[in-house]
Order: sequence, then C-alpha cells, then structure tokens
Amino acid sequence: MKTLNIGLVGYGFMGRAHSNAFRKAPKFFDLEYQPVLRAVCGRDAAKVKAFAARWGYETCETDWRKLVERDDIDLVDIACPNDMHRDIAIAAARAGKMITCEKPLAMNGPEGLKMVQAVEKAGVPNMVWYNYRRVPAVTLAKQLIDEGRLGKIFHYRAKFLQDWTISKDLPQGGAGLWRLDVKVAGSGVTGDLLAHCIDTALWLNGRIDRVSAMTETFIKQRKHNLTGKVEKVGIDDACAFLARFENGSLATFESTRYARGHKALYTFEINGEHASIFWDLHDLHRLQYFDHRDEGRVRGWRSIHVTDGDHPYMGKWWVPGLQIGYEHSFVHQFADFLQGIAAGKPASPTFRDALQTQYVCDAVLKSAKSSRWQKVAA
Amino acid sequence: MKTLNIGLVGYGFMGRAHSNAFRKAPKFFDLEYQPVLRAVCGRDAAKVKAFAARWGYETCETDWRKLVERDDIDLVDIACPNDMHRDIAIAAARAGKMITCEKPLAMNGPEGLKMVQAVEKAGVPNMVWYNYRRVPAVTLAKQLIDEGRLGKIFHYRAKFLQDWTISKDLPQGGAGLWRLDVKVAGSGVTGDLLAHCIDTALWLNGRIDRVSAMTETFIKQRKHNLTGKVEKVGIDDACAFLARFENGSLATFESTRYARGHKALYTFEINGEHASIFWDLHDLHRLQYFDHRDEGRVRGWRSIHVTDGDHPYMGKWWVPGLQIGYEHSFVHQFADFLQGIAAGKPASPTFRDALQTQYVCDAVLKSAKSSRWQKVAA
Amino acid sequence: MKTLNIGLVGYGFMGRAHSNAFRKAPKFFDLEYQPVLRAVCGRDAAKVKAFAARWGYETCETDWRKLVERDDIDLVDIACPNDMHRDIAIAAARAGKMITCEKPLAMNGPEGLKMVQAVEKAGVPNMVWYNYRRVPAVTLAKQLIDEGRLGKIFHYRAKFLQDWTISKDLPQGGAGLWRLDVKVAGSGVTGDLLAHCIDTALWLNGRIDRVSAMTETFIKQRKHNLTGKVEKVGIDDACAFLARFENGSLATFESTRYARGHKALYTFEINGEHASIFWDLHDLHRLQYFDHRDEGRVRGWRSIHVTDGDHPYMGKWWVPGLQIGYEHSFVHQFADFLQGIAAGKPASPTFRDALQTQYVCDAVLKSAKSSRWQKVAA
Amino acid sequence: MKTLNIGLVGYGFMGRAHSNAFRKAPKFFDLEYQPVLRAVCGRDAAKVKAFAARWGYETCETDWRKLVERDDIDLVDIACPNDMHRDIAIAAARAGKMITCEKPLAMNGPEGLKMVQAVEKAGVPNMVWYNYRRVPAVTLAKQLIDEGRLGKIFHYRAKFLQDWTISKDLPQGGAGLWRLDVKVAGSGVTGDLLAHCIDTALWLNGRIDRVSAMTETFIKQRKHNLTGKVEKVGIDDACAFLARFENGSLATFESTRYARGHKALYTFEINGEHASIFWDLHDLHRLQYFDHRDEGRVRGWRSIHVTDGDHPYMGKWWVPGLQIGYEHSFVHQFADFLQGIAAGKPASPTFRDALQTQYVCDAVLKSAKSSRWQKVAA
Repeated sequence: MKTLNIGLVGYGFMGRAHSNAFRKAPKFFDLEYQPVLRAVCGRDAAKVKAFAARWGYETCETDWRKLVERDDIDLVDIACPNDMHRDIAIAAARAGKMITCEKPLAMNGPEGLKMVQAVEKAGVPNMVWYNYRRVPAVTLAKQLIDEGRLGKIFHYRAKFLQDWTISKDLPQGGAGLWRLDVKVAGSGVTGDLLAHCIDTALWLNGRIDRVSAMTETFIKQRKHNLTGKVEKVGIDDACAFLARFENGSLATFESTRYARGHKALYTFEINGEHASIFWDLHDLHRLQYFDHRDEGRVRGWRSIHVTDGDHPYMGKWWVPGLQIGYEHSFVHQFADFLQGIAAGKPASPTFRDALQTQYVCDAVLKSAKSSRWQKVAA
Repeated sequence: MKTLNIGLVGYGFMGRAHSNAFRKAPKFFDLEYQPVLRAVCGRDAAKVKAFAARWGYETCETDWRKLVERDDIDLVDIACPNDMHRDIAIAAARAGKMITCEKPLAMNGPEGLKMVQAVEKAGVPNMVWYNYRRVPAVTLAKQLIDEGRLGKIFHYRAKFLQDWTISKDLPQGGAGLWRLDVKVAGSGVTGDLLAHCIDTALWLNGRIDRVSAMTETFIKQRKHNLTGKVEKVGIDDACAFLARFENGSLATFESTRYARGHKALYTFEINGEHASIFWDLHDLHRLQYFDHRDEGRVRGWRSIHVTDGDHPYMGKWWVPGLQIGYEHSFVHQFADFLQGIAAGKPASPTFRDALQTQYVCDAVLKSAKSSRWQKVAA
Repeated sequence: MKTLNIGLVGYGFMGRAHSNAFRKAPKFFDLEYQPVLRAVCGRDAAKVKAFAARWGYETCETDWRKLVERDDIDLVDIACPNDMHRDIAIAAARAGKMITCEKPLAMNGPEGLKMVQAVEKAGVPNMVWYNYRRVPAVTLAKQLIDEGRLGKIFHYRAKFLQDWTISKDLPQGGAGLWRLDVKVAGSGVTGDLLAHCIDTALWLNGRIDRVSAMTETFIKQRKHNLTGKVEKVGIDDACAFLARFENGSLATFESTRYARGHKALYTFEINGEHASIFWDLHDLHRLQYFDHRDEGRVRGWRSIHVTDGDHPYMGKWWVPGLQIGYEHSFVHQFADFLQGIAAGKPASPTFRDALQTQYVCDAVLKSAKSSRWQKVAA
Repeated sequence: MKTLNIGLVGYGFMGRAHSNAFRKAPKFFDLEYQPVLRAVCGRDAAKVKAFAARWGYETCETDWRKLVERDDIDLVDIACPNDMHRDIAIAAARAGKMITCEKPLAMNGPEGLKMVQAVEKAGVPNMVWYNYRRVPAVTLAKQLIDEGRLGKIFHYRAKFLQDWTISKDLPQGGAGLWRLDVKVAGSGVTGDLLAHCIDTALWLNGRIDRVSAMTETFIKQRKHNLTGKVEKVGIDDACAFLARFENGSLATFESTRYARGHKALYTFEINGEHASIFWDLHDLHRLQYFDHRDEGRVRGWRSIHVTDGDHPYMGKWWVPGLQIGYEHSFVHQFADFLQGIAAGKPASPTFRDALQTQYVCDAVLKSAKSSRWQKVAA
C-alpha cells in the first residue's frame, strides 16, 4: 500500500472534520493509499501541538510556507479561513503538492481563477471540500437525476437557514467568529452557506445563467474582537436570489443567519416533469422522492431511509436502518479523492468546478448591490 | 325522489354529527332518497327545542317510545348514551323502523345479540356508526388489502390515545361525562375507543380468535355529578391487549385516556408479506404505504395525500390537495346507507357486524379480570 | 332573527364552496342573521336549475343584471370567473347590495380600484373570499404575531405549488379550464395562487414595498376549448419573486403549476427575533411554532394540532383531536361576515384590503416583464 | 496518560463497532486513559489478520483462552455470538480483566447470574454494550425523567421492528445468520431486539413486575448453513408482551423481523402526568417532547433536534444542527467506561444491570410458552 503524507493547515472546526476523515476513510473503504498525518500547521504553537497530540500528527508547523515546502508532504490540506486560501494554494501548487481546500474556494472569482490556473499549470490533483455532495441521500439524488428519472427540470429551490447571529451582542472577528468579519470571510451567508447550495445545484442541475438578488445586514455594527472597537459589519446576514438555469428551469435560493428555529437547515427541492426530489440536512439520512409514474391511488412522497447496502457509500458502514451523520460526508469525499488519485481521475468538485460557484456568488453580490439581474461569468 | 323521514334520539355530540351528515349527504352525493328531519327526541324539552330549531327538525319529542311509534318516521337514529341503545333499538325494530345506532352497539355481547335478533326478525335495514371505516384513507386501506397488495398479513397494531381524564378533579356522570359512568357507558376506553379499533381491525383483517388483556383505573374514585357523592370509578381508564387473528397474524391493541399529548390519536398499522399500511386519525387525510416491490434504491414509505378524485369518496368534494375532516366520515356512511336501501343491500357495519366487536370487547374485559387468555365468541 | 337574502352568481367550484358555507354557518355559529338562499344565477339554464335544486336555492336567473336588481336580494355573492367581477360588483354596489366576491378581486389594480370606489361610495358591506385567513391555524398565527410573540420580523417565505397543468395536451379555456385563459383569468399563478400568499402576507406582516420577479410559461401554445384552435398561452405557469416589506423583513414568494408531487401546497414561514411560525395547506389543521424563549435543552418546533376549544373557531365544531378541512374556512369567513354586519364592522379582507393584493400582483407582473425591481402602488 | 490495553474477541459487525469506538473516543473526549488495540481474537486466522491490519490491532489470537490469559491485556471486549459470552466472561473475570460484553449478556438468566457472580467476585469493572442508552436523545430523555418533568408515569410502549427475515429462502446459522440459530442466539427477537427495548425501559422507568407474552415463528423450517439440512427454526420471529412496571405504569412491547418497511425501527414512548416523550431510532438525533404545562394555545409535540452544545455528549462533536449517527453511541459508551474506571465508578449498564434484562426476557419467553402471566425474577 502506498502512503500519502498529509500536511494540514488550520486546526479549527474544519481541521477536525478533515482529520477525522483522514483517519476513518481507510478503516471503512478499500484504498490503495494509506494516509499519514505528517504535519499540522497553525499560528498558535501551543494549540497546534495539542491538536497534533490528539489527532496523531507527527510534527507541527507555525508557518504555512514552511509546511508547503517540506519534501515529506504529498498533500496540502487547506482548512484555515478564506482569506488565506489563495496564497497557500498557489504556493502549494508551485511546490507540486496535491491540494484539498476547504470551501469556498476563494474570497471571490478573480482570486479563484488564479488558484485554478496555478493547480492546472502544476498539474496537481485538487479538490474543494463541498462535502454535501457526498451525503448518501444527495449522491442518490444525483444518480436519480442522471438516470433521467425526473425528466425535464422545471424548478429548483434551495435554502440554508441558521439562527446563531441574531443577538446584537455577538462580536465579530477572531477565533470562531471570523465568519462575521468581511475582510477574512469575503462575504457572509453568500460565501459561507449559499456556496454550498450553489455547488449542489450546479452539480445536480447544470449552469446558472443569471440571477437577481437582495442582501441584508440586520445588525449594522458589532464590536470587533481583534480591535476591541465597534465596527461596521461588512458581511451579508441574509441573501436571497432568483435564478435562471441554462436548462430553462427557474430557481429560488435563500440563506440567512436570522431564521429562528433552524440551526443548519440546508434543504433543496427539484421538480421535474416526471418526478421530484427533496432533501434536508436536518434529516440528512433521508431522501424524499415523488414519482408521478406510480399508480394514481397509491402515489405519494416516499421517505427513503438512505441506509441500505445499495445506497451510495452505505454498504461500507453498518446495517440497514442505522444512520450515519454529518462527518461521514467528509470521509466519503476523502475516500473518493484517494480512489481518484489511484485511478488518475479527478474527484469532484475540482478547483475549476468550485470556481463556477464563486462566479455565481460574485454575480449574486453584484446583483444585490446594483438591484439588477446579473449574468453569471463562465 | 323518495323521502326518508328521520327520527333522531339524542342531541349531544353525536346528535350533531349525525344531523350534519343527514343535511350534507344529498348536497354532495347523488342519492335516490331525500332525508327529511322529521323529529328529534331528548329528555330536556327546552334543549330539544333549541336543537330542533338550529338543525331544522320539524317536531320534538321527549319520550323516545312516542318517537318510535310515530307513523311519519322511517328511520330511527340512536345517538344517545349506551345504556339506552338496546331498548330503543328493539322497540324500533318491532315498529318496523330502519335503525342506525351510534357505537358501541350495546353495553355488552348478550345485549347486542338481542338487538341483532330484533332487527333480523323485523327485517329492517340497520347500521352502526363506526364512522372511521368511511374516512377515505381507511377505505383506501381496505381496497389495497382486498386487492391482495399486502400478501399474507403478519402483524396488526392499533392504539387510541387520549389525555382528557388525567385530572383527579374531573367528576363522573351526567351530561358530557357519562362516558366515565360505568352504569351508563358499560365500560371505559374498551367500549368507547378500542371498539373503534376493533371494528376497523375486523373489517380489514378478519376475525380475532383470542386475547390477553390488562386494564387499569388510575383514579379510583371520583365525584359523581348525579349523586353529588364521591363514588368508585367502575370504568377502565386504560386497556391493552394482545390478540391472535384467525388468519395467523399477531396484534397489539391499546387505549387510554392518560396519554399526555394525544387528543384522539387513533392509529393502526398492518404489516404484510409485500406491503405495509399506516394510518393516523390526527392526520386522517393521509395514508402511509410501503411497497417492498418498489425498486430497492427508491423504496420508502409513501405519504399518500388522500384527496384525489380517484380516492374513495373524494371525487364528490373539492379539488386535489384540499382536505376534508372528521365529520365527512359520517356523511359518507349515511350516503352509503341511503344507497344501500335504494339497492336493497345492507351498509356495513350492520348490527351483526358490530356484535362481533362487542364479543371482542367482552373477551378483553374478561381476560383483564381473569388474567388469562380468552377465546372470542362468534 | 333577521334574514339575509343571498343571490349567488356562478355555480362552479366556488359556487359550491360558498353555498356550503351559507348552509353550515348557522348550524355551528350563533348568528343574528339567517341566510336565505334566494337565487342563483348562471348562463346555462339547465345547469343553474340543477344546482338550485341540489342546494335549495329558491329561484334561478340566467342574467346577472336581473339578479342584481331584484328587490328580494340583500347580498350578491360573486363566484364566477375573474373577468366578470368588476361589472357585477359595480352594478351590485349601485343597487345597494352587500357584496362578497371571490378572489382575486379583479383582473388588475385599476379594475379593482373602480370596484373599491363603487362599494365605498355605496357604503355597502363588502368582502373578498381570501378564505385561508380563516383556517384556524392561520388565524392562530395572526394572534401570535399580534401578541408580539415573534418580535421583530426578519423573514417571510411563501409558496403555492401545484402540478395539474404539466401535460402539454391539456387545453385552455372554457368550463374548468378558464384559469389557463388569460382573457378570463387575467394572469396565471400570480392571480390564482400567489394572490392567496400575498393576502395572507399582508395580513400577517404588513405592506410590501417593492418586488423583483420572474415568470415563465413552460407550454407556449395550447388548444383553446372555445375556438378549437391552438392558441398562444397568455398566462404565467410559474412566478417567483423577491420582496421587501415595509417593516424591513425580506421575503421570497413562489408559485407554479409545474411542481410534481404537490397538489395544493400553500406554505408560509415567518422568522422573528424570538419565534418562528410555519404552516402548510396540506396539513392545514397544524401550526408549527418554535419559541426561542423555551429552555434550551427542550427547545424544538412544536407541532400544534389546532383542534382544541381554545383555538380560533374550533370551539364551535367537534372535540379536541378531530380535524376540520378546507371547506370550513369559508364557513368561518361567512360567519364573521354575518357577525360583522350585525355589529356594523367590516369583515376582512374588504375590497380595499384586497386591492392592495392586486397592486402587489401588478408590480410582480410588471417586474417580471421589465426584469427590474418595482415599487408597489399604495 | 495511562494506557488501557484492549483484547477484542470477535471481528464481525460488533467487532467493527467497538473498534471504531476505541479509536474515536480519545479524539473527541478528554480521557485519562489512552486505549491501545493490543490484540484481536477470532477462529479464522486469515480473517483475524486482515481485521487486525485494517483496524491497527498489534497482534492476533485464534483461541480466546490465550487472549484472556495474556498479561498485556487489561480489558477483554466480548463481541462474539451469544453462546460464548458466559465462558469468556467468567475466564476473563478469573484472570482479573476488565470486561465489556456485547448484549445480550447471556443466553438466559441463570447463565447471566454466573457471569455477574464472576465479575463481582473478581471485582473487575464490567459493562454491557446496550449502546442505545448513549444516543444523545435517549440520554436527554433520561435527564428529563430524572428531573421529574414527566411526573407520575402512566404508560410505556416500545417496539423494535425489522423486515429482513421474511423470505423463506433465507437460511439459518453460520456467519451473519447465527441470529436465526437458537443454539447460538438463545432466542430470536426477544434476546436480539426486545433486550434493547427492555434495557432502556428499566433504565428510564424502573423494574418490570410481570408480563404476558406471545411469540410466533412464521417460517417453521429453514436450511441450516452449518449442516446443510433443512432444520426446525427454534427462535421467535416475533414477540409481543404486556407488562406492569413496579411504578404502576402499563406497558406494551413488541418486536418482529416481519414488519415490511422497517429496517431497525426501535421506538419508545412514555406518557406521564405532565409530559410525554417519544424517540425513534430511524431519526435518532431527534427527541419528541410534549409538555402539558405549556400554554394551551401553543401546546404541541416539540421536535427537538438534539444537536446543540447543551445536549448530552453533543458539545464534543460538531456544531448545532449537524447530526451524528449510530456509531457514536458506542463512542459515548466507551468514553463513559473510561471515565468510570478513572473515577472508580461503574459505567452502566453493568453485568448486574443487564442481568435484570435477562430475567425479563426469560419471563417473556416463559409466558409465551405457558400462555400465562409471569412474574419477573429479581
């Protein structure tokens, strides 16, 4: 078995999710590569050390430039805030490393384009962690669509609702709260949450042609944790947009952090000529499926408990009826990545795939600012 | 169009439900008989008069014996407490009237048998208001079973849960509370609620052979509204039983008025070799259906919104997607009764059908008392 | 008791729904007025006669102008297609009749304004049948909002999804299909379905300031039943729009007749600072309610089975746990109308209330055409 | 940090579930002990070796007696079929090892009693893997009950429904099918599935006093994989029983492998004076809670998404809204075990706790055989 030496940058929420995936994938999937947790990098030496001890990383770094240049690293995994993705990715590509990068790919489209150019020039395997594609129910949705079961698509609707920033006393910036700091995050719910919705949509339903959007920042000023001062909030707290897909279908997208009662309610629904699909992150192990070709009297939405051996990825886990959770989507994606490099085939979404999501986000933000429909770049 | 002159006995909850059915049936169904609300009878003259005025009954009576003997009455509808069913029904049969009787048929099996003998001897159309058979989703379940879709039946489970008698301060007896008075009701949840579950079960799954039951009276004494004294409570507050059907399937039945959170949660589920069915009174317009013959990957419980034109009775109401409610089950049952007399065919359940439910109730109560399995009379 | 003589125009789906309400309201509500079904009017004499016989209308008319001028009519109820609302309403107002009009009020805002001016000038009681306000769960939502339980509102989202016009073989025009004929309907889903969503939204959340919309007509040509020729389809099959309310909240609205699996799925959700509400026409007897002030560990969406005596209107029906259906919303609205005229207070929505919905529809259609945000007239 | 050397017996479904728990617990929980996967034991040398390689066990054994006697083993984990639990546990206890044993504890009560005596005599920490206690929603239920929120308990109902043995072509015995072989399994659904229901019930609701049960074996003969012959099936395919708890509450329990549409539907509901609880393994991350003390109009079943930081165990995983799955219950249980030995406190359920479940199972099987109520041993 070949080894794959991993250098992780970032030890926060995503650093844990990725590390868990690195460790679990070979226990449940048959892989040609054995991941080795060679190094983890972060700015706070003590915290990096503690993280390395817990997760079994062999060494620590506090400067990502050093990590990127180490000869004993095959894969650089970028799990730090958005504003650092570009520089790390470009440097890693130049150093000939494989790269897996947390989403969103970049702060915006132009940044993303440079990253795409870098990895494509270097010819290194690359992937962005839009993990929801690998929730078995979502992968099943993809299968059903690709098999033509839905027929012509008329409608797509997605939303991602949270409620964790409603309090005006919540500060912005710093550890755990960089998602509220526009300089670090690039945008608010658009890049953080809608990017997920858009990635899935592009995968399932093809290109988006144009959008009309609105955004809102309900709390205009918050204390900034790094400066200690009350500062203007630059991110979008909420964003909704209309979209037209290239295949002629109509879509609505919405995301907010001001929807009481919803912690991470990512849902999507697709209505086709023959069948419809609905999925919900709060019950991620189920897929709702309606098939109009069923006999009339017994036609109904089917609640598919996606835990059977013939469901995507599920044959690798437990027995029918026993659900898996959020973290497993990362395990699946990493297993697919390893199988991809073994087979010489890219695992989706690549940087280029993810760039398209970035372009949609850019068009959304531009539309919200201009109050006009915007064409999406391609 | 022929007229059918109705004489109603009782003006309580069921008097209203029946009267509403009498009035609505000809508006929505094509019937050969036009019901005429000729008379209503009750002990309190003022209340009877007010009821007659509201519902359009032409005349009033305060003695049911007079009502039963009136020449201008074709159908005697019995909607008064259980302890009066027998005498009224037997007198009405002797007078040659058609009879519709609120459930349960009688206080017990022997009483019920006499009623059956009376109506059969008189040769008069007769029916018991086990209305849940005519909820469209339940009728659809019957159709699916009769079509053989479930295959061999392995399991039946039913429950009817309420929570309205938990307070120890609730008195027993008198208007609105006669269901707690064993002398009037005959039994507690067994005759009031389980009788519904048993009726549906016999209809859908055939005869019950034997039962093992337990009952409980949580509040042993309550003030009696008629005597003003604290008296022993004679009814069962809760009852659960195991059963074996003649077709080899196993069953559990349970009912209680001590299930917090459930107002009238009547549910049943049937598991067959090929398919299963679930229904719930709290969402009575839906039928849950699972068919194992569906393709594996997209197999799931189907939530059938039973509001389409090809669903039982629904073509007579509104448009697909618009639900009907509780009261419509009575309308359907009365329409079926009228169509039955037009066609010379009995509408189910007849007194004889309902007698079988009475025998199961008797066996249940006997089993609970003896702590032994009991064979059901036939 | 006073009588109220009703003259109904139209004997289709809505003619039945209204007639049922006229008959049932006095059976279940305590009213000072007794409705009398004096006359029904329609173009086809034989059909009108049959309808009158079934529902008990005393007389028939085939020319609405005659009906409007009859001295023995107090209330003109308009239940015919949209293109006739204006003329009938204005004539009825001039004749001093009370008027209840099926929704949408008119073909467009300017038409609606003339109707408002007519009824206000005549000083006659008037109401539009936006019946969903009177579904008990929706009325309960209104109560909770008015009591301030939600706090500041951040988001409103509504949709109304159907799937009955997907087939390209479905013709347009004529009985049962006039909703596809733009000359009769005025618009497609915007006036038919979104009008309901907008009416509820204005009631619950106040004025809408501006909108950005898109519409689509998936099937461009259909056979016209009246001409027998294939003609261009002028209605919108689908419409989605973004909206800003005057209270600062953001909204998404969507409607379509191309959503497989949904027969009449009208849903709305409101997210406030403290609490959220969700409702769904397919389970209209439930209200989902989330209150953030609940203790953290046991916080969750509450599924309120709106069938208790302390829920709006429900004390008049059966007992807790027993659901009512679609038709009851009309009964409630008519009971409120009668109580309103007894008390000298208008029952909502009046023509003027409904005009505001018309203005939103106009802005939506204009925005879809212009691809620009549009201000809503007031 | 101290190390804890683990010797695992069995490498099937449960061997994987336990190994995953050993590996994950220290990554997510702060523990004083570091588990070391020292040895795994199984009869098939090649398979054991492959298992060891995948999961990182340092050594292999093919004779459990050798494993039990090794000095470098601190904890013997029993994850092999039921018929071997007793001998391994008693030998391990004699060797002074800590023991964790897969459920059910033993083939029957008398066997279990010997195991309890052995571990108590040896004074070694011991625990049985009734993992569902550690599903966060179930642990939350325990907290709510212990806090007295439900008040006096009236009803308990549990069921565990599967559908995987309906085919008569399914053989019995051997790898993967020993659960159908009565000599290895001891019983059918009673020991396999109802044992889980009973364990939870005893934990949440106290002792069961007496039971009345029925069992059924739908397929009387199946080919035996080890003998190659068609042999009588000795296990119970289905079992249902009534029970009386010592606290006065009434219960129904049911389990079957013949319930079409249910893969692993373990549900329980508890009705108390003030509140009720419902849980469902198919959506294990939710707890349904109804509190009658909520204000009447907004009272409803709360669907608690048990993923918040203040929910049991959940602060250790991801962020609110992101669900965990089946496997995590084992991780929690093992973390609790390690914390227990660090603190010198047993982690539940101990062998003695689990013995009580065994006694209930014995009474159930005896009642089914005798058709009489049976007292549960204590």
